[in-house]
Amino acid sequence: MPIRVLVWNEGRDERNIPEARVLYPNGLHEAIAAPLRKSVDFTVATATFESQPDHGCTAEVLDATDVVIWWGHKLQREVADVVVDRLQQRVLDGMGLIVLHSAHFSRIFKRLMGTSCSLKWRVTENEREILWVTRPGHPIVAGIDDHFILDHEEMYGEFFDVPEPVETLMISSFSGGEVFRSLCTWQRGMGKVVYFRPGHETFASYHDANVLRVIENAVRWAAPTVDSKRANFGKKTKDWLDAAGS
Amino acid sequence: MPIRVLVWNEGRDERNIPEARVLYPNGLHEAIAAPLRKSVDFTVATATFESQPDHGCTAEVLDATDVVIWWGHKLQREVADVVVDRLQQRVLDGMGLIVLHSAHFSRIFKRLMGTSCSLKWRVTENEREILWVTRPGHPIVAGIDDHFILDHEEMYGEFFDVPEPVETLMISSFSGGEVFRSLCTWQRGMGKVVYFRPGHETFASYHDANVLRVIENAVRWAAPTVDSKRANFGKKTKDWLDAAGS
Amino acid sequence: MPIRVLVWNEGRDERNIPEARVLYPNGLHEAIAAPLRKSVDFTVATATFESQPDHGCTAEVLDATDVVIWWGHKLQREVADVVVDRLQQRVLDGMGLIVLHSAHFSRIFKRLMGTSCSLKWRVTENEREILWVTRPGHPIVAGIDDHFILDHEEMYGEFFDVPEPVETLMISSFSGGEVFRSLCTWQRGMGKVVYFRPGHETFASYHDANVLRVIENAVRWAAPTVDSKRANFGKKTKDWLDAAGS
Amino acid sequence: MPIRVLVWNEGRDERNIPEARVLYPNGLHEAIAAPLRKSVDFTVATATFESQPDHGCTAEVLDATDVVIWWGHKLQREVADVVVDRLQQRVLDGMGLIVLHSAHFSRIFKRLMGTSCSLKWRVTENEREILWVTRPGHPIVAGIDDHFILDHEEMYGEFFDVPEPVETLMISSFSGGEVFRSLCTWQRGMGKVVYFRPGHETFASYHDANVLRVIENAVRWAAPTVDSKRANFGKKTKDWLDAAGS
Repeated sequence: MPIRVLVWNEGRDERNIPEARVLYPNGLHEAIAAPLRKSVDFTVATATFESQPDHGCTAEVLDATDVVIWWGHKLQREVADVVVDRLQQRVLDGMGLIVLHSAHFSRIFKRLMGTSCSLKWRVTENEREILWVTRPGHPIVAGIDDHFILDHEEMYGEFFDVPEPVETLMISSFSGGEVFRSLCTWQRGMGKVVYFRPGHETFASYHDANVLRVIENAVRWAAPTVDSKRANFGKKTKDWLDAAGS
Repeated sequence: MPIRVLVWNEGRDERNIPEARVLYPNGLHEAIAAPLRKSVDFTVATATFESQPDHGCTAEVLDATDVVIWWGHKLQREVADVVVDRLQQRVLDGMGLIVLHSAHFSRIFKRLMGTSCSLKWRVTENEREILWVTRPGHPIVAGIDDHFILDHEEMYGEFFDVPEPVETLMISSFSGGEVFRSLCTWQRGMGKVVYFRPGHETFASYHDANVLRVIENAVRWAAPTVDSKRANFGKKTKDWLDAAGS
Repeated sequence: MPIRVLVWNEGRDERNIPEARVLYPNGLHEAIAAPLRKSVDFTVATATFESQPDHGCTAEVLDATDVVIWWGHKLQREVADVVVDRLQQRVLDGMGLIVLHSAHFSRIFKRLMGTSCSLKWRVTENEREILWVTRPGHPIVAGIDDHFILDHEEMYGEFFDVPEPVETLMISSFSGGEVFRSLCTWQRGMGKVVYFRPGHETFASYHDANVLRVIENAVRWAAPTVDSKRANFGKKTKDWLDAAGS
Repeated sequence: MPIRVLVWNEGRDERNIPEARVLYPNGLHEAIAAPLRKSVDFTVATATFESQPDHGCTAEVLDATDVVIWWGHKLQREVADVVVDRLQQRVLDGMGLIVLHSAHFSRIFKRLMGTSCSLKWRVTENEREILWVTRPGHPIVAGIDDHFILDHEEMYGEFFDVPEPVETLMISSFSGGEVFRSLCTWQRGMGKVVYFRPGHETFASYHDANVLRVIENAVRWAAPTVDSKRANFGKKTKDWLDAAGS
């Protein structure tokens, strides 16, 4: 059975920013979705901030989703509570979540991390990013050499305020000498969470073969693996909650 | 300079439940605070749900607090947003947080974990809990033998829905055969978070020397260690946030 | 392409201990190998302490092996240096290793852990073991309910002297009230290491459907995922080593 | 009671290499020991490869040692088995170990890690290293700003073949664009292990205030915290080992 992927993208920068429009005429989501669609292992849907209702993240849509890829930026604070709550619950129930680039500040990522998710940042310039593998052999870096280079990217620097990752798979350096944990994993409930750094809207990162390879690997890795029998894990839980709430 | 501790306790069960009133006539918070007060290493304040304003957790109080100990139960959902937000920010800025027993469902713990924090539970009976050390040598279990026993406690069982702890220091078994990760640590921002399981209000756990020893150790371990220079970590952060929000 | 599995078993207890002979007439290795052989996803070989040469672990055999399952006991100290060195190198190069029961004291496991790997233990009696899942959703516990029970097993208790696992997937309790981290993972180099507790030679654990399911899941999880391009990770390594050694 | 520190240094490069002799006329060990000696919190001894007997690491010396700092290089393979065995056992029993720079290839570090501990490396040139804090608030980086710079150091690059650290506290970038996890911690048995990258013998790193501050912090953090009651953790261990060995 194929892995059912939902690529979510804010979707406004590509209309408002000329460079982004040229690079991603159909939106970042289509650039990310297209390579996945080439494999029979995936079925791929997309949604944007403006999708109706619930930014395209209804219960029905998520019922048919195994892994969500999330790209957000300037509208992040405007994502509705009901969507953030629903995404969180789905991750706890086993849905995978791949968080990209500026979505480090998405409400769903901050919710799952419990921290500010802040980082250092520089007004966009052409900077060279080198991404180094720090855990060869991990499925998410399968097929990636010991490093790869993106000639034009936006700088993100430490301290990246996230909980200590379970696995730190890649670390970047930038022309300015900054470093950043660029590919990390966490577990939340029964779900797997991946953060992957590249992808500024005015650069061609989502046309880079290595970036796309990591994203595809991450989708495979984060997919739920089983009839998870969640009921059993939950049904014996504190029953006073029903009365007293929590 | 002494470590400044705030012991926070919901404070209602000890008035409403006869067994609790007998065991903790001055409240759970006083039972926890009293042993700490014997050492010149600590200055100890207390607060309860009914403390005014902000359940006793104003900015001024937290300015003078290094470590918060938190015990909550039936009123957890009623803790005000402003208090949860403030506690979270303080932990990210370096304040230590020790979460006890039923406060696994406190809003601040759930906020910091990003998960449901649910667990298995049985209507209170007299059950024997054995707590085993799984990481001897760690400062929080200093002075604790390879295990200790609480003859009367409430059962908590796995799956405990929290992120993989950075350190799992003690694991409990119960008469019914259940197990539970009873003493765990996480880091959030610059702050340290500890969860410690024992402490049902109708049992004498907060009069047990081993339990009190772990709590005191945890306070020492979770205390901020330094002039943290937070400004520097923050001031170079994404400046578009000021405009676009996050 | 199938995963190539080598089931290694000391192989002497089943000849010397009557109960073991009855339960495992073809050896523990055959009991573990048989269910894997039913799937086209695996090709399965076996070897024992007495296999010639190198206890059946020659370079040629390991060249054709993706995952090794290891069961050892009284002869562990007699396993040859060359075999331990070779196994370690293969794991660092990406081979998976599943360590079972008393093989916690195998030389290869101690070599990879860097610790004593000691634990508490009781002369074999009929004891009930309950194994609880502490990380639902992980591929290695796919298809396992929230717990399962083995009516007859040997007690292992904490402190289990291993490095903090990357993931703690199951925790056991025993009739005597002891607890044990029964299913854990670590990474070493490019290889994945799993420890799984059950499997005393005089009990029927390797005929238990849940135990066999976990082992099969672990094999799938620990298999190397890719053309690992080890050369690139190694070739730029300190060249003074060639001269000065290390 | 002061923390008893043993600074161990191979001690030959400073005699053979002119630049090292100028920078460290009394040896690297004295440069590291001198600042610690200024505090009443420490008592400091030193030893070198040539110390007699056992490279200065006899049982008697280690009986009087809480934390060992280790710097090694070209003679690492010649350190005697008995010394490596003894150091490992002491760490498992609670002694702290701080491993510096090229001692990533020391036998004791490789023994405790279980991996090759290899890394990328370039023939020594003047390269700028920037060390970034990735976990502010941790005691080992107390008093350190968000980063510090060493103008002249030797490049070490990922993949650094060590087990996933429990905590990654600093990450370096180098002029060539490489990155390295420069300050990491692990636990082994009851002991704490720290790796800290800087310290090439021909550069002035051990005269740098930030480097020395991290080393002092690490010594405080790695010191054993308690009467560890090891006996109890060990005495119930598998008794068949006495007969059968392990």
